[in-house]
Amino acid sequence: MARDIRVTVWNEFRHEKEDDAVRNIYPDGIHACIAEHLNAQKGIAADTATLDEPEHGLTAEKLDATDVLTWWAHKAHKEVSDEIVDRVQKRVLQGMGLIVLHSGHFSKPFKRLMGTTCQLKWREEGEREVLWVTRPGHPIVEGLGECVIIPHTEMYGEHFDIPEPDELIFISSFAGGEVFRSGCAWNRGAGKVFYFRPGHETYPVYRHPEVMRVITNAVRWTTPTGTMEIGAPNKPMGWFEK
Amino acid sequence: MARDIRVTVWNEFRHEKEDDAVRNIYPDGIHACIAEHLNAQKGIAADTATLDEPEHGLTAEKLDATDVLTWWAHKAHKEVSDEIVDRVQKRVLQGMGLIVLHSGHFSKPFKRLMGTTCQLKWREEGEREVLWVTRPGHPIVEGLGECVIIPHTEMYGEHFDIPEPDELIFISSFAGGEVFRSGCAWNRGAGKVFYFRPGHETYPVYRHPEVMRVITNAVRWTTPTGTMEIGAPNKPMGWFEK
Amino acid sequence: MARDIRVTVWNEFRHEKEDDAVRNIYPDGIHACIAEHLNAQKGIAADTATLDEPEHGLTAEKLDATDVLTWWAHKAHKEVSDEIVDRVQKRVLQGMGLIVLHSGHFSKPFKRLMGTTCQLKWREEGEREVLWVTRPGHPIVEGLGECVIIPHTEMYGEHFDIPEPDELIFISSFAGGEVFRSGCAWNRGAGKVFYFRPGHETYPVYRHPEVMRVITNAVRWTTPTGTMEIGAPNKPMGWFEK
Amino acid sequence: MARDIRVTVWNEFRHEKEDDAVRNIYPDGIHACIAEHLNAQKGIAADTATLDEPEHGLTAEKLDATDVLTWWAHKAHKEVSDEIVDRVQKRVLQGMGLIVLHSGHFSKPFKRLMGTTCQLKWREEGEREVLWVTRPGHPIVEGLGECVIIPHTEMYGEHFDIPEPDELIFISSFAGGEVFRSGCAWNRGAGKVFYFRPGHETYPVYRHPEVMRVITNAVRWTTPTGTMEIGAPNKPMGWFEK
Repeated sequence: MARDIRVTVWNEFRHEKEDDAVRNIYPDGIHACIAEHLNAQKGIAADTATLDEPEHGLTAEKLDATDVLTWWAHKAHKEVSDEIVDRVQKRVLQGMGLIVLHSGHFSKPFKRLMGTTCQLKWREEGEREVLWVTRPGHPIVEGLGECVIIPHTEMYGEHFDIPEPDELIFISSFAGGEVFRSGCAWNRGAGKVFYFRPGHETYPVYRHPEVMRVITNAVRWTTPTGTMEIGAPNKPMGWFEK
Repeated sequence: MARDIRVTVWNEFRHEKEDDAVRNIYPDGIHACIAEHLNAQKGIAADTATLDEPEHGLTAEKLDATDVLTWWAHKAHKEVSDEIVDRVQKRVLQGMGLIVLHSGHFSKPFKRLMGTTCQLKWREEGEREVLWVTRPGHPIVEGLGECVIIPHTEMYGEHFDIPEPDELIFISSFAGGEVFRSGCAWNRGAGKVFYFRPGHETYPVYRHPEVMRVITNAVRWTTPTGTMEIGAPNKPMGWFEK
Repeated sequence: MARDIRVTVWNEFRHEKEDDAVRNIYPDGIHACIAEHLNAQKGIAADTATLDEPEHGLTAEKLDATDVLTWWAHKAHKEVSDEIVDRVQKRVLQGMGLIVLHSGHFSKPFKRLMGTTCQLKWREEGEREVLWVTRPGHPIVEGLGECVIIPHTEMYGEHFDIPEPDELIFISSFAGGEVFRSGCAWNRGAGKVFYFRPGHETYPVYRHPEVMRVITNAVRWTTPTGTMEIGAPNKPMGWFEK
Repeated sequence: MARDIRVTVWNEFRHEKEDDAVRNIYPDGIHACIAEHLNAQKGIAADTATLDEPEHGLTAEKLDATDVLTWWAHKAHKEVSDEIVDRVQKRVLQGMGLIVLHSGHFSKPFKRLMGTTCQLKWREEGEREVLWVTRPGHPIVEGLGECVIIPHTEMYGEHFDIPEPDELIFISSFAGGEVFRSGCAWNRGAGKVFYFRPGHETYPVYRHPEVMRVITNAVRWTTPTGTMEIGAPNKPMGWFEK
């Protein structure tokens, strides 16, 4: 029997402390909400970490024991130390899965792994988002129909400045007419990175069953399947022939 | 001085003969409208060909003298002979550009080059389409702003069953809430294939300045830059060292 | 407990009947050798089918009960009926895995799904091939080191006329100096296609432990994870909102 | 008449000052050799910049007036200031072409734009490299045959830790049996990045006619075709409809 997938749910955890509206939706923080959901799934063991913990809760030991890291952040991206970003990047390249949520598009780990600005257009009008599946049969859409509807949410619009995704899994339309590549996957080293747009601190998006279904599917799909060694070795002629 | 780009604008040319509403928009056929526009551009020389001509107007001589082929068809895909499809495919692999328009998604040449069903959802309600640019700076979007608006048109919705595009250049939203990858490019052999969604026989889409701008840009961008030899040669040890 | 992965190992099965040298290596055919190996793996149940059986052994019932199809062929590609090719293509798009081996690069199902000539250079000198892993951590390379060495085999050289792979997993070098993209994966519809170069009828390549390890890994990796419906439905405004 | 393409040839310029063997090959530096070649081409105007100049020779004014930047470096990657790396990255995303040569794979601008370690295997035995064309017809291979032979050079071997290239244009084999993706292109923002492996300071690789042909072709191909605005604007409902 395989052991449980070890997930670390990372959250900036500032809005929930400072804003009543957010705290009303996520009294223990977005991370607690996501971790609780994941822990109710078979074969997943989720823990949490937040910005204000020592080393942002992401010690080398913690990351080494993490199969999949999820990342939510919004207003304090700059407070994340570059040393921890180095550590997260290295672990992804070695195979750790990374799931970046919503405003995490501007987080340091995501920008580091993408190499682009990750910029986009945005609007907070609480409009409807429809996420359309563009890869039927993909493990990340398991259990969904042809689309997922989020009644009220923030808008993100193209152009989203990312490298062309290795797999484009969802495209969203918004009531206002914009579109967005809202579910994108990239391979980086031995690791998989999945960006998933839904989620805003002032809407209960992480209580939406289909959104949580996607996050759960993504946890399983980004679980490491092997590793990449770090190093640039000098190799003598004939080394591989023994 | 480089010679003109030689474009062959291919059209099924049936709706225009059989349906007054279509003929009113395109009295000489969609092909004539597109070719006229292209011929007004510097450095482009466009000719036309249609289904009911001998060899559908696509003799070996004609295709050999074509740099870029554009393809519009809708109701008579099955009447295109497989021999001509073979010929078009071979020329694309050798470097000829191919621009597939609107309902051409179900044409034999496109399905041949994609290897998939190319299926999609559709609706004829004359709703608004907004094409969003997802690759700013790409030659195909030269001269455009951030989006192109088509006030009334047929809807195409995901899932569009195509191989993941090598370059995704436009994504459309429709008033009804659907999305569609409406500008997609693939390399096949030495040739470039560009699928561009806009265009329906009952709306004057091929008189829309920005739509025609994209088609003109795409003609320039899919113009051959080299060739691929056809053949699977046996090569003796050391052949390349002379 | 999940049921076994149902594999159908398809073989042209002509060389083995007509050529003593081939029969000496594969007395019951290449298909029997591959199927025997797969049946020794946990969770895999392999059956076989060959060209000269009715419907090439690929009845609709058989394909409907196949999760992964492997394809070996060389000299009789043209004898495969287009109806069966249609059937294989459709099943792949619906989610069935397809593993194309060696000279199967010129098979009708592979060329149908690629849309290109799939041509390459070749030489039969029994030279050494080294397959280098270009995607460490990928499920297909599980259990391998940095390369796989095949002491004596046919050479295949670039340019290999295929669409840019969605995932490039192995690149080979040959003693004569050529290179080849020898492990390539594409998504088509809901299905995964994996091309794997090793294998020639006059060398015991399908008894090489690491080659068989890759084929086994590929069976697991191309197993369907969902399905794509075939159809291009007309959808009324508002259909998805209930 | 279009103006000349403005190229800035950047070089670390340390080996040439410190090592007689290198100075004998490139008495005025690798940059001077490359710039001289480019300046002899029609429509190209090349200038140079080096590490030890103020701001590494890459002031904002200089970069703003650069269409294509080429980058050679080896032993002093760490001395490149992060501020200049930010500036180069931003200009690439805005559309500037970037051509990274040989040991530039470990340069800060390349690693920044890739998001990976860019690690590889290596060996200095002066062995033969053959670069095979995997994209016939691509503008970058214009004027070449099926391969380019470099008689004596350093070896680079897979695994090369890069994101899957958007276009894989050359694969090398080495006499020792290794392979390497030696010509790779990526889109980042509105810019094109081309990595080209050939070139070592102790071999006269930048005097090889076909290597210089590729660099010249790459200059033309990575020349900007448009731009991307930097910014993440808030957009009111209906902004694009005027």
